[in-house]
Amino acid sequence: MDNRISVFGTGLMGSAFVRALLRSGFEVTVWNRTPERCAPLVSEGAILAQSPVAAAQATDTLLFLVLDQDAVEELLSGIDVSGRRVINYVTGAPADGPRIAELVTKAGGQYLDAAIAAYPDDIGQEGALIYYAGSRSAWNQVQDVRAALSGLSPYVDENPGAANVMDAAWVACFHCVALGGFHEAMSFALGQGVSIETIAGGVDHFLGLLRDIMFEAVETIKSGDFSTDQATLDVYLAGTSTMLKAMVDSGERASLMAANVANLETASKAGHGPQSLFAQLLTMRA
Amino acid sequence: MDNRISVFGTGLMGSAFVRALLRSGFEVTVWNRTPERCAPLVSEGAILAQSPVAAAQATDTLLFLVLDQDAVEELLSGIDVSGRRVINYVTGAPADGPRIAELVTKAGGQYLDAAIAAYPDDIGQEGALIYYAGSRSAWNQVQDVRAALSGLSPYVDENPGAANVMDAAWVACFHCVALGGFHEAMSFALGQGVSIETIAGGVDHFLGLLRDIMFEAVETIKSGDFSTDQATLDVYLAGTSTMLKAMVDSGERASLMAANVANLETASKAGHGPQSLFAQLLTMRA
Repeated sequence: MDNRISVFGTGLMGSAFVRALLRSGFEVTVWNRTPERCAPLVSEGAILAQSPVAAAQATDTLLFLVLDQDAVEELLSGIDVSGRRVINYVTGAPADGPRIAELVTKAGGQYLDAAIAAYPDDIGQEGALIYYAGSRSAWNQVQDVRAALSGLSPYVDENPGAANVMDAAWVACFHCVALGGFHEAMSFALGQGVSIETIAGGVDHFLGLLRDIMFEAVETIKSGDFSTDQATLDVYLAGTSTMLKAMVDSGERASLMAANVANLETASKAGHGPQSLFAQLLTMRA
Repeated sequence: MDNRISVFGTGLMGSAFVRALLRSGFEVTVWNRTPERCAPLVSEGAILAQSPVAAAQATDTLLFLVLDQDAVEELLSGIDVSGRRVINYVTGAPADGPRIAELVTKAGGQYLDAAIAAYPDDIGQEGALIYYAGSRSAWNQVQDVRAALSGLSPYVDENPGAANVMDAAWVACFHCVALGGFHEAMSFALGQGVSIETIAGGVDHFLGLLRDIMFEAVETIKSGDFSTDQATLDVYLAGTSTMLKAMVDSGERASLMAANVANLETASKAGHGPQSLFAQLLTMRA
């Protein structure tokens, strides 16, 4: 591909994309529903397109960073994607990718679905991660674009929904749930008079413990052997139930704690109590 | 203090304690409700006490690792703790420490409440962490005992409940909730055909992101300024709601995801939607 690229949508994330691409020497055409929002980017070297059609005609590689999947589909219905690469960076559900992929490929274009697991500030950095799924050929062709945006840009699967699956699993589920758990923990400890400094002193230690047990979980799932000679699922259930009661008694809502105890109860009732904590995986489907 | 110590309770954790103390040169007297369970420890150098009274009379430093707080109180009611140090390592609620502390100090003993944030295998290791609260004088006196058991043995507060507060906050709430979130994430991704290897490839990356955002949360809470120029709480609420629906539609129970979305909804309804994700802390009490 040549070094010309079009970016649809210049919000926080779109603007971070445009700046990273300009820094890497791309000629970047930008379009935004509110054109005034593009002014700072234009002053930094971006080219303003007067319409979506003009933005699409300017280049062969179209990046979408608009509000939602409806906005992506509306834009795609009005432009010619034949012979072009469409990369959809908008957070969506796993079912969105396959639907939009069909639309693009029927019109003669190539489709890549992407899921950004990074903050706008991290775009262009070594440590930033963006998952890609869909056309492997398009993924290969845009290697320079990927490299300009994030140090990590793995290809997950041909299923265009797979990037959003990884995003849902890691960002929406693990990251947000773990951060929520930290907030429930802080709310309780602060309410009991522990200082924020004393709490902060535990962050690295407990992230180390968490890393160990996450890799232990992975190995256990690979082996399929959920037996244990360490604390059993029932021991964790008893301990977390006691602590849940203490938190609720002291005025905390403790919603995540309650949901976790409920998950362990479900696993215990299904007979996994004497097994390892990782056996909770076996009863997580409705 | 001299090098003699008594350990009540020789289950998985108690046995790990006895072995770590023997390795550090302590003379260890052990008592267990089922004396036969002590046989391996006796063959390794521990001294078997025939009764709780005998175990208490043997030394001035009494470590409790029995089943629960009731068992601790029952044992304490039958022995003479006057002039002795009692250290209670049994996981309990924050209210247990103060109650047992009163019992011990009234009888002329010193009381330390402890919370073990480590697995039995880690006892005696540099990286192991045990929180202590209660008598600071007793904490100073048992420095060698603490060092034999864990590399990290911080003193949290004079309130004997504070060790269990730290335990509840970090282990029962953060650690178990985060691990539960990882299991919900795995259940969803595995169900969608992503391999366990592809999932495992994200562990270190997402723990790095989590560390960054946890310290950002700490700094935000210290400052009290919940404004943001990055993704707002409402943006997270919209994203996690979409993903929750996708997970539920695909057959996941997603209990932790649902509880997290509910926490963010509560914060948003209270007017914190345009603020940072950390503003969820402000609406976590019932």
